Amino acid sequence: MVKRAGGALLPSIAIDPAAPRPIATQLYVGLRDAILSGAIAAGTRLPASRALARDVGVSRTTVIDAFERLIADDILMARVGAGTYVSPALTAERPDAPAAGAGTASPRCAPRLSSAMHWTVEHLAERSRLPHSPRAFVTGLPALDEFPMALWGRLAARHWRAGRADVMGYGDAAGDPALRQAIVAHLGANRGIACDVEQVFITGGAQEAFLRIGALLLNPGDKVWFENPGAIGARNSLLAAGGELVPVPVDSDGLKVGEALRRSGRFRLAFVTPSHQQPLGHIMSLERRLALVRAAEQAGAWIIEDDYDGEFCFGRRPISTLQSVDRSGTVIYVGTFSKSLFPALRLGFMLVPPSLVGPLRTISAAFSPGVPSSVQAIVAEFIAEGHFAAHLRRMRRIYQERHDALCAAAAARLAGLLAVTRTDSGLHTIGILPRWLPEKAVAQALAARHISASAIARFSIERAAVNGLVLGFGGVRPAEIERGVAVLGDVLEELARASRGDRLPARYDPAASPRSPEAESSEGVNRGLKQCPRPLSGGPVRPTRV
Amino acid sequence: MVKRAGGALLPSIAIDPAAPRPIATQLYVGLRDAILSGAIAAGTRLPASRALARDVGVSRTTVIDAFERLIADDILMARVGAGTYVSPALTAERPDAPAAGAGTASPRCAPRLSSAMHWTVEHLAERSRLPHSPRAFVTGLPALDEFPMALWGRLAARHWRAGRADVMGYGDAAGDPALRQAIVAHLGANRGIACDVEQVFITGGAQEAFLRIGALLLNPGDKVWFENPGAIGARNSLLAAGGELVPVPVDSDGLKVGEALRRSGRFRLAFVTPSHQQPLGHIMSLERRLALVRAAEQAGAWIIEDDYDGEFCFGRRPISTLQSVDRSGTVIYVGTFSKSLFPALRLGFMLVPPSLVGPLRTISAAFSPGVPSSVQAIVAEFIAEGHFAAHLRRMRRIYQERHDALCAAAAARLAGLLAVTRTDSGLHTIGILPRWLPEKAVAQALAARHISASAIARFSIERAAVNGLVLGFGGVRPAEIERGVAVLGDVLEELARASRGDRLPARYDPAASPRSPEAESSEGVNRGLKQCPRPLSGGPVRPTRV
Repeated sequence: MVKRAGGALLPSIAIDPAAPRPIATQLYVGLRDAILSGAIAAGTRLPASRALARDVGVSRTTVIDAFERLIADDILMARVGAGTYVSPALTAERPDAPAAGAGTASPRCAPRLSSAMHWTVEHLAERSRLPHSPRAFVTGLPALDEFPMALWGRLAARHWRAGRADVMGYGDAAGDPALRQAIVAHLGANRGIACDVEQVFITGGAQEAFLRIGALLLNPGDKVWFENPGAIGARNSLLAAGGELVPVPVDSDGLKVGEALRRSGRFRLAFVTPSHQQPLGHIMSLERRLALVRAAEQAGAWIIEDDYDGEFCFGRRPISTLQSVDRSGTVIYVGTFSKSLFPALRLGFMLVPPSLVGPLRTISAAFSPGVPSSVQAIVAEFIAEGHFAAHLRRMRRIYQERHDALCAAAAARLAGLLAVTRTDSGLHTIGILPRWLPEKAVAQALAARHISASAIARFSIERAAVNGLVLGFGGVRPAEIERGVAVLGDVLEELARASRGDRLPARYDPAASPRSPEAESSEGVNRGLKQCPRPLSGGPVRPTRV
Repeated sequence: MVKRAGGALLPSIAIDPAAPRPIATQLYVGLRDAILSGAIAAGTRLPASRALARDVGVSRTTVIDAFERLIADDILMARVGAGTYVSPALTAERPDAPAAGAGTASPRCAPRLSSAMHWTVEHLAERSRLPHSPRAFVTGLPALDEFPMALWGRLAARHWRAGRADVMGYGDAAGDPALRQAIVAHLGANRGIACDVEQVFITGGAQEAFLRIGALLLNPGDKVWFENPGAIGARNSLLAAGGELVPVPVDSDGLKVGEALRRSGRFRLAFVTPSHQQPLGHIMSLERRLALVRAAEQAGAWIIEDDYDGEFCFGRRPISTLQSVDRSGTVIYVGTFSKSLFPALRLGFMLVPPSLVGPLRTISAAFSPGVPSSVQAIVAEFIAEGHFAAHLRRMRRIYQERHDALCAAAAARLAGLLAVTRTDSGLHTIGILPRWLPEKAVAQALAARHISASAIARFSIERAAVNGLVLGFGGVRPAEIERGVAVLGDVLEELARASRGDRLPARYDPAASPRSPEAESSEGVNRGLKQCPRPLSGGPVRPTRV
């Protein structure tokens, strides 16, 4: 039965000559959607091209072009001497679905995800969306303003002028050999790590390393010791890999291994940041390192050592890695260039024990996505030509300056409100708040004033016994740090007034707080708060199990 | 109890002034490893720096430097006025492990992997390692020699000169908005896809898309319909995600949906290449497309449409995507820039149904590795400035020329030995071998002559009823194609002689085969072999279930 598409067809096809999409494509999409939605039935004969062109207000060439595309798609059929018809296949096989396009309707409002991912989506920790321009006191961003971009641009230009096959083709799935060699040399000279190039696998930042390690090693429900508070991205990745995270308190010696054993003696993986605990900043003691390695050996477990900013020590050499004291191959060392160069590279690596080299090579070759060769090659050159070592030396000095600027400004403006902890490495530190200034409320009030400072709770799976803020200084210019501390002071004073009525001590700039005329000794404000005079690794912040 | 490290300590520390590692680091590593291995016991007092310097043959400054690093590591302790000792912590907590370094010994020869990955490693399909310089008849490489690299270099240089925060910081986890917008515009103009920017997620090539989709949707053991033969990388990724692959035969209309339903009515995901079946080259018919979408709807399953080279049609417009006929949001469209630009970018994307936008945004923000911003920004500019569309137009012509060169050379040289199938799109085609020339033996013999040609079996989970080779032409210069066909002819003739004695027909260059004087009609050679005169989508290659 042949039906004739009449005038009813035409209004449903809207042609907009001013739209960016070509008119022929608009007609093609309009006809196709009308047919697939059933508005034009299978077997229907379409008007002749000349008539349709006139009715829609386009040229006949445009109509013929659209018809030809629909014929190529099997949606229309041309019968010689008999016109153009909607394919009869569309009757029999039409999906019994609503007539709305996939782009507009959403019949699957709650799609069925894998069980692991469904669970993960419910339990993910929120990662902060970093602003594009560093501002006080963003963490996770290095000093973008101090990067030698002109030099970088020259290396990039040189890369694109190199041989096409190397620059454009598929490279080694484990990573650019030159970059892996450069990393091995750097680790040997700077971290005392002796390893083979084969043990190094290049990844899309540390984050891809965590995902791959999780997929490689974890069965659903496997126990993972996880520092509490601890790194957010790694936590999410290991959750997504099916791990059951066991929060383990940290103190100034790092992860409390004895407590971890009490909580879960049968564990499969431990995640630690031994060089600079994320976020509290402690260095893991040698005793704890040895105890952790021994526990992993006895449980047949693995350890991830996340060395996200271990390069940045002020006035001292970087300390040894956990990997260096591992005699039996349980430690997977993960490094990143997000802090030592910049995050947009999405470049990191893992240094795995010899026993994992074989499986990882197999997996890499079989299905790993790989990292763009341009990024790998430029970084390899940057390291090999000595720019990386020079950059690190320079940045250590700059980060120390910024750290000192933060501590000096905080000492001058925040005494009694926020005890900023001095540290001797990294790009961030913490500030401890008095109990009566709850960290989440403070972080919220700061965000409203365009100051970024995370509550430590954001890093915690279970409540940690620290009430404070994580303060990045590495990516923030000294002038911004000064301004940020001033705003911090204002906000904390406002909150202090609100939470404690008008009992704010006069010494906290009485001119700025005209509604708080009554003074109070600073001891009152200082309750629950200890200023930390020396580097954090020996500091007083000792989270305990809550 | 204090022991004194005597002469026995010193021989174990080898200092090589010519080594690239600084002497102080060599001493530090040597002492550290001697202590951690137990060769120098806990509590041991080390020689005074002056004495050790003399014995080892280094300066005293070098010794002090090494000591200071070991003290910072808590491995040594300095007691004022009493010398330097090995930390007593090393007695109590020493791991009970062999004394070999992690870099040299491998106590875990067969490491315990996750069950899924253990199984996967055993079942992975081998992906070919692509040579750096394209040679006949490598698949998967575009025409690197024809890429506008000077233009690309200028765009790259311009990128690195842009604002630092954009160029260096963390970007949108779902991908660069400019690139996603450019992709939406391109898909709209070229593939008739109407979609929202929010539906597009940038990935590290198509491979990362498959991994993420698998992790998002598959529970362990979920059934996945998979084209047989089919794409190797996707197969490995879906295996790794825990999917149980159900091989489904393809014929010239694409995946046999009826057969798939008979094999596994309860499926969770289907993987198809509708625009150009990988590797056979068929176009999936509209009937099959509609049947597949309906089957997915009824099973509550999802479909991956892998459009790896759908842009490259010879003398016609690209056909519609499967995504375009999906009215209910079951299709996830995956695109890649590996063929349309070049593989080293590691850049692809997925266009997901609206119902998956929310979960994927959450997951992307929480833990996805992300793609380097330089790669995304340069490609976005390349598309937005119109270079991409122009490049595709030019490459379509070049690929058609190379295709025609292959077919012409094959017709002149390989008649009766290899029936090269004409196609009208893509960068590769197939050649059918007579039954008495088994594809694997041919591929091996060709590899020994530096010609790459995959046996179709390499793409098969179960045996497919095709005996042939996959031949890439897109990345190979015409002169290389000619030379490759000549070698192919030689190799096939040699194998033919070996497998059929000396009954090779005289017309196959008798001068080159002096040991085959007897002639035979070409019908004999042609047994089991049909030459395919028209585009492959209607060709005679109909694999059936074996």
